[in-house]
Amino acid sequence: MKSWEQNIRKVEPYVPGEQPQEQNIIKLNTNENPYPPSPGVYEVQKSIDVNRFALYPDPSAGKLVRKLEQYYGLEEGQVFVGVGSDDVLSMAFLTFFNSDKPILFPDITYSFYPVWADVYRIPYECPPLDENFHIRPEDYKRENGGVVIANPNAPTSIGMGLQEIEEIIKANQDVIVIVDEAYVDFGGETALPLLEKYENLLVIRTYSKSRSLAGMRIGFAMGNKRLIRAMMDVKESINSYTMTQESIEIGAASLEDEDYFQENLQKVIATRQRCKSELEKRGFFVLDSRTNFLFARHETVSGEILFEELRKKKIYVRHFGGERIKEYLRITIGTDEQMNQFLCAIDEIIESL
Amino acid sequence: MKSWEQNIRKVEPYVPGEQPQEQNIIKLNTNENPYPPSPGVYEVQKSIDVNRFALYPDPSAGKLVRKLEQYYGLEEGQVFVGVGSDDVLSMAFLTFFNSDKPILFPDITYSFYPVWADVYRIPYECPPLDENFHIRPEDYKRENGGVVIANPNAPTSIGMGLQEIEEIIKANQDVIVIVDEAYVDFGGETALPLLEKYENLLVIRTYSKSRSLAGMRIGFAMGNKRLIRAMMDVKESINSYTMTQESIEIGAASLEDEDYFQENLQKVIATRQRCKSELEKRGFFVLDSRTNFLFARHETVSGEILFEELRKKKIYVRHFGGERIKEYLRITIGTDEQMNQFLCAIDEIIESL
Repeated sequence: MKSWEQNIRKVEPYVPGEQPQEQNIIKLNTNENPYPPSPGVYEVQKSIDVNRFALYPDPSAGKLVRKLEQYYGLEEGQVFVGVGSDDVLSMAFLTFFNSDKPILFPDITYSFYPVWADVYRIPYECPPLDENFHIRPEDYKRENGGVVIANPNAPTSIGMGLQEIEEIIKANQDVIVIVDEAYVDFGGETALPLLEKYENLLVIRTYSKSRSLAGMRIGFAMGNKRLIRAMMDVKESINSYTMTQESIEIGAASLEDEDYFQENLQKVIATRQRCKSELEKRGFFVLDSRTNFLFARHETVSGEILFEELRKKKIYVRHFGGERIKEYLRITIGTDEQMNQFLCAIDEIIESL
Repeated sequence: MKSWEQNIRKVEPYVPGEQPQEQNIIKLNTNENPYPPSPGVYEVQKSIDVNRFALYPDPSAGKLVRKLEQYYGLEEGQVFVGVGSDDVLSMAFLTFFNSDKPILFPDITYSFYPVWADVYRIPYECPPLDENFHIRPEDYKRENGGVVIANPNAPTSIGMGLQEIEEIIKANQDVIVIVDEAYVDFGGETALPLLEKYENLLVIRTYSKSRSLAGMRIGFAMGNKRLIRAMMDVKESINSYTMTQESIEIGAASLEDEDYFQENLQKVIATRQRCKSELEKRGFFVLDSRTNFLFARHETVSGEILFEELRKKKIYVRHFGGERIKEYLRITIGTDEQMNQFLCAIDEIIESL
């Protein structure tokens, strides 16, 4: 190793689902929304003044932040926005987890959590999910430097009740508890009502799933003003201008079309429920999803084989390697037509084996 | 202090120049380009497919990266892109400066450097510029954990010759040397020819100044593949998708219009030279600028008074508080018309005192 290499930070990066540039793929592997963004987004895009690209955007992303505060009935200073919820989560890890004690998150959850912990050198421990892939609140009642819970959890798709979430927060009032609600709009129970009661609670959301705006990179955190101020201070110590002016404008516009938003959610949920039954008919065990994806294993065919065979048919789903979940596929809910093609492909694969 | 507050990271954020939302401001305070982005940018913006916003962008920003490699005659794997050069610089600090020895950068330079060092807990020392605000290469020939040089330097506007830059890199082959070339297109000497010779060199650039695209948040680093891979690993340990698809497309398109780019640069340089003479006629001492701004002090009127009086006339320039530079103003080069208005305002202020 050359001497200049010695001080390079050692990391093991997160591996996102593939983003194939090829056309004609049925892409059910990164939990994107199959429906387009709301009509208001098209309006904003049409009216953007390209001359303005020469200027820096508003570093506080004020227009988007104010709109989010309004939408969620919060006070000024309770929302932090970033470049997708990954940026927001990463900033929260860096801002709040500076204890020598380990932070806690489940053994099976969003696989970026251990990556952030590693890159920022935060110790962590991972209480295992129970045999039904449920989070056990009692596992989070030991000394720690912070807690992170995805609710609904990924890749399991399972939602946790508000009472259980409160049990965890209540037992951890000396540290920051992050509830990652990336998928909550698809039928989860939000911890937002607890914000008034617990000043150590941070709720994190994204535009990438329910709002069909993965491409615009918008995520946000909601919490008490002291927490949000601390995150802004850290963000302003890293990059003054994170959001393009366009993301700010489009993010704000997306909150206006509530009817479109709700219809879109209902469509995804209906397709999910139908697809779950269809999979069950085909010999799959499917967890009860509160998200825009299903987590399912077949009674006889291995997860890896299904993943590979689907891929050959240009249908991309996600497969994880961990011991407890390697027989499962994580299948994003697409349009009804896409899911029909997916189910046909499953039939063909199973028949051919 | 509540117990959950104890582990919040302590930082002192960077303070960017104001981004007034008010209209009718002559904005010469954040070194933006007064001319619009290139014609190709308008084309891309018009042809953007909004439906695509529902999908994640290419996490590797491949299209933009390949174009930059081509443009600068580099090999595949020699370019890293990020959300403005601040994102890229921050990522470089986190990736490369993990030694116990202090990194070195000048006492008067981009004021974000000490902020990144603080947030990532990197020790640093700041050799003072000489009495003419020049960097002395000999100051960088002591034990250190890395070196950062802005060339041309900010806010001084002064450029350093390639020989002196090489002297610094040559003396520091055991650590990473970052040359921050945010302003180099306006007449500086680039360290790019040294990339083949020194594998510990990282050159960082931005689209925010010379390419009139501050709003799209695009910056990049160039270096040997090992360095770029290390930065990508760290970036992928923080946020998979940092650049919107639009920034990727627009960044690539901007590199096509070379004539427009060069004309634009020449206009800014011509206005800068004219404005320098005009200021000198008015009793200013103006440093020799290789950037799109001037750093100037008046022989009798204080920097703070000039800053405040200009502000009252809705002309925003930048003023820094440090002992050695508090009599100076940093004045971004606007259009000729804007600079005429600026010079008129200066006349009025000086007359009225």
